[in-house]
Amino acid sequence: MAVILITGGARSGKSRRAELRARSFPERPVYIATAEALDAEMDERIAKHRARRGGDWIEREVPLDLVTALSETDGGGARLVDCLTLWLSNLLHAERDWSEEVTRLADALPRQHSPVVLVTNEVGLGIVPDNALARTFRDAAGIMNQTIAGVADEVEFVVAGLPMKLK
Amino acid sequence: MAVILITGGARSGKSRRAELRARSFPERPVYIATAEALDAEMDERIAKHRARRGGDWIEREVPLDLVTALSETDGGGARLVDCLTLWLSNLLHAERDWSEEVTRLADALPRQHSPVVLVTNEVGLGIVPDNALARTFRDAAGIMNQTIAGVADEVEFVVAGLPMKLK
Amino acid sequence: MAVILITGGARSGKSRRAELRARSFPERPVYIATAEALDAEMDERIAKHRARRGGDWIEREVPLDLVTALSETDGGGARLVDCLTLWLSNLLHAERDWSEEVTRLADALPRQHSPVVLVTNEVGLGIVPDNALARTFRDAAGIMNQTIAGVADEVEFVVAGLPMKLK
Repeated sequence: MAVILITGGARSGKSRRAELRARSFPERPVYIATAEALDAEMDERIAKHRARRGGDWIEREVPLDLVTALSETDGGGARLVDCLTLWLSNLLHAERDWSEEVTRLADALPRQHSPVVLVTNEVGLGIVPDNALARTFRDAAGIMNQTIAGVADEVEFVVAGLPMKLK
Repeated sequence: MAVILITGGARSGKSRRAELRARSFPERPVYIATAEALDAEMDERIAKHRARRGGDWIEREVPLDLVTALSETDGGGARLVDCLTLWLSNLLHAERDWSEEVTRLADALPRQHSPVVLVTNEVGLGIVPDNALARTFRDAAGIMNQTIAGVADEVEFVVAGLPMKLK
Repeated sequence: MAVILITGGARSGKSRRAELRARSFPERPVYIATAEALDAEMDERIAKHRARRGGDWIEREVPLDLVTALSETDGGGARLVDCLTLWLSNLLHAERDWSEEVTRLADALPRQHSPVVLVTNEVGLGIVPDNALARTFRDAAGIMNQTIAGVADEVEFVVAGLPMKLK
């Protein structure tokens, strides 16, 4: 089944686009949130996303074990993973081997029976960040995006709410 | 008449592209600058833009009341608004309700008789900024760009001086 | 012969794409590295790039005198210049007139007999940097990219490893 990667900048309309794509498949869609509600800013953002999506989604919070969650939710509606950059950030915080986890995800995606729509962020189009941690993160995010795009059936780059087809 | 949004990064050739589009319409074009000449860096930038455009534009400085300015200049040549991100920054500084102002602009654009070409910036494709104010700004800019792109007849994304058609 | 500009963000797959394009031409390709191995982070990056490319490239380290290097290597296989943003940074550090050097490069490119593939970075799609030096650099990079894109026969923008044709 289809693996669709939606990439773009902050507030570019990626999530909305991904929701539209996920809803286009039959059966009740599954929302896999990689965000954890750890502070007020994040709380508010999660609440806004939920309000927009409406209540008919199956919801799961999956900060780390994405491959397991995909396996457990396979066989029904489309899974929307929002988003990979936060998942990567969670992996780095938890001191997991992000490179290995990205490879595991890339291996698992083509084996899914139900569709998967993944949201990610472009973070490498600004000035080189001053601090080494931010540089490490943007390098990892770039490599992750290339790897997942490589196994995806479709890739879209969203700017100002409008998708460009990359693949 | 046409509403055209030109987006892109810093020094991507957005303004030049927007000038070309504005000049393609009949009658003398109107340049609506949202910049105010508040420091030397801005002064120099404004002077460079003016030198490139040439002297046959009607010029207005409109830091805040864009909808009024569009209404007052309607009926003649194309209006070039350069740029929306600076306008947004001005609104935030003036403690106006930016969300309401963006909605007012989005409502006013389809009612214009003369063409409007609007320049904006993509600011959300780098690493998440450290400070909360910058995060607020880039979120607002992303939402503004989606909103205006939604009502525009044409949207172009300029990279290295070359436009990609988004809509 | 062909002048090809490959632009994109950090870790977007630009270099890999540029290597593919350079290899598509007959004869042994020339790798013109603008990086100097000045610290451990850069050392590691250079070693990774070399490992991926394989050993059949003619290699040159050219931090500053790009036009001379292009002239000296003309007549054989394609030259891959990786990358222009680092060259620009080197010029600024060496207090050369970057604007003049970019113009010289733009003049020299259409006169080459062997193909040239140039890699550059988009750095202007994030929030305006706090420090003036970073703003100067991103302005210069944007102008350089526009200038070189203007004389290139082909321009590609790479996102998540996937090229979009701009020209």
